[in-house]
Amino acid sequence: MTDSNRPPDATQVGRPFDRSRDALILEVTLDLLAERAYDRVTLDDVAARTGKAKTTLYRRWATKDDLVLAAIHSIGLPPEIEQLPDLGSLRSDLLAVVDSPWLGGPDRRLALFSGLTSAARASERIAGAVRAEVTEPYGEIYRRLLTRAIDRGEISAEMAARVPIVADVIPAMSTHYLTAADRPAQRDFFVAVIDDVVLAALQVGRG
Amino acid sequence: MTDSNRPPDATQVGRPFDRSRDALILEVTLDLLAERAYDRVTLDDVAARTGKAKTTLYRRWATKDDLVLAAIHSIGLPPEIEQLPDLGSLRSDLLAVVDSPWLGGPDRRLALFSGLTSAARASERIAGAVRAEVTEPYGEIYRRLLTRAIDRGEISAEMAARVPIVADVIPAMSTHYLTAADRPAQRDFFVAVIDDVVLAALQVGRG
Repeated sequence: MTDSNRPPDATQVGRPFDRSRDALILEVTLDLLAERAYDRVTLDDVAARTGKAKTTLYRRWATKDDLVLAAIHSIGLPPEIEQLPDLGSLRSDLLAVVDSPWLGGPDRRLALFSGLTSAARASERIAGAVRAEVTEPYGEIYRRLLTRAIDRGEISAEMAARVPIVADVIPAMSTHYLTAADRPAQRDFFVAVIDDVVLAALQVGRG
Repeated sequence: MTDSNRPPDATQVGRPFDRSRDALILEVTLDLLAERAYDRVTLDDVAARTGKAKTTLYRRWATKDDLVLAAIHSIGLPPEIEQLPDLGSLRSDLLAVVDSPWLGGPDRRLALFSGLTSAARASERIAGAVRAEVTEPYGEIYRRLLTRAIDRGEISAEMAARVPIVADVIPAMSTHYLTAADRPAQRDFFVAVIDDVVLAALQVGRG
């Protein structure tokens, strides 16, 4: 703590910020967003938990929004967008997305998305980043899974026209739940959306 | 204009603000929200279009948020919550909600909801008001319509357990669309949600 509170000396001035330290700071920021709403996450919290001085954080990220945007960028896209689950049935594949180990698994990931939803409400820039890096990629993953299920004959080809709108139901219900309830959705909720809305609307598993 | 710019005199001090004038101001506020995003609606716009002085507006509503909250309260709840449409089929009743003349009919109403969504992103208090006075009442209307359709036998009783989650699909998709697209959803979108998701998931019209 005392060390990181030291004012910059001659050797530090102009030296690029050590980016290898960013990973810890961004991870702590994500942890805090998974624990509480955006308005109760402060730079002081991040400083305290990382042992960095606030001035150090501010040299790297001018505002809390900038820090949170960097944290969002750091998580990358859902891995399923690179590698679609392929477990033999549409339902298993959809559940594999819900149960993905990404970002620490379902509980921590849903808690983090709850924090990101509160952050998106507070900042238009963050809202744009959450749309581009979370909501839209998930829509894309569900669209591809449903399209593949048509190709495989698991969904009737007559249903093809409704795939785009049905693919948006899971991200839409997730956002709706987070906005209405202000707490993370549980796995059961997604299972019900998959079974009672998505698969039901596409008449899967009624053959 | 000159009259309304006059500073308060002795007879005005302490006199209650003339609430009959509120209706015009709130209606103009709603018109502006139907035309553009919240961050581009200013008190200057409201003053210019109503012919009131900004000081007059600020005496009544301390901030833009307060004015918009008052405008949201002024619209009341969707009339369908008092009187459910009853046109003989679930599909007709759901479409009657979409085609309701409330707030000037579908085009103006959807444009207004688009403005309210942008306002909700800018203010937690407005987000709460939109949830309580728009999103949740619509969820309630759809729940009642679906429940009534079960009572009438139009939806199989086996589907009863999924009614609550399916009832939330229309408001959820509406919010999702508004958040993603930043422009009002069109009627076609709601018709597709009703036919391809809601009625499909409840197996209506397949008998």
